[in-house]
Amino acid sequence: MMKHLIAIAVLTIAPSLALAGDTRSDIDGTLEKFVTALNAGDATGVASFYTDDAALLPPGGERVDGREAIQAFWQGAIDGGMKANSLHAVEVFDGGDVAGEVGVFVLTVPADDGVSEIHGKYIVIWERRDGVWQLHRDIWNTN
Amino acid sequence: MMKHLIAIAVLTIAPSLALAGDTRSDIDGTLEKFVTALNAGDATGVASFYTDDAALLPPGGERVDGREAIQAFWQGAIDGGMKANSLHAVEVFDGGDVAGEVGVFVLTVPADDGVSEIHGKYIVIWERRDGVWQLHRDIWNTN
Repeated sequence: MMKHLIAIAVLTIAPSLALAGDTRSDIDGTLEKFVTALNAGDATGVASFYTDDAALLPPGGERVDGREAIQAFWQGAIDGGMKANSLHAVEVFDGGDVAGEVGVFVLTVPADDGVSEIHGKYIVIWERRDGVWQLHRDIWNTN
Repeated sequence: MMKHLIAIAVLTIAPSLALAGDTRSDIDGTLEKFVTALNAGDATGVASFYTDDAALLPPGGERVDGREAIQAFWQGAIDGGMKANSLHAVEVFDGGDVAGEVGVFVLTVPADDGVSEIHGKYIVIWERRDGVWQLHRDIWNTN
């Protein structure tokens, strides 16, 4: 009987442990895959890291709503020759299934004399859905 | 005895209830005071709504760390004649003592032909400290 109770307890607790994870390392891991997809020109892959009802708030433009529109946005950047030189989290503020991340990036874009480096910073509001952290709101600007 | 137990229970629960509040309406209230202080030219008042270790991530500039530097930043904007025409929360993602807010603003700045309107959007990561929601990280850009 005791053995069964322990088995049930383990089964009950295990999913929560899996869900809890380590927010910071989960986000770091997703950002790494995000950059890999972006630099491979895989806009579908990039968009897959966002919630289906995510939004971008890009500088110099209107808000972009939904994963499909987000994919088109990143496709445009890829087509323009943009590459992510680096992109990483500086701080993560963990609120359970919501997290606020502050990050910095260096992008390169084609320029007359080769490439131009763009340094900037961003905030992403992440949501954890079905145990997976996804980008939900994404804003950035340049320095 | 029962009466004492109830009294203790009420005393124990009350502060939690006070702390819980309504995140959205607390943030809305602070934003209203923020705008009032800004338009009154009160940079000290504006800065008081930030945590002491808050940071601004302004477009076209480097990160600004700490309440004192934040006050100086807003003083510069005030001295430049900037006014907040409107500023309000569009969405608040509540994570307990951390919240992510997406907002929009219309600013006016002096221009040759009177004033120029600037439309933009922002994300603020809020932290609740000692029961008070404060701006902790603040990034924006223009449309």
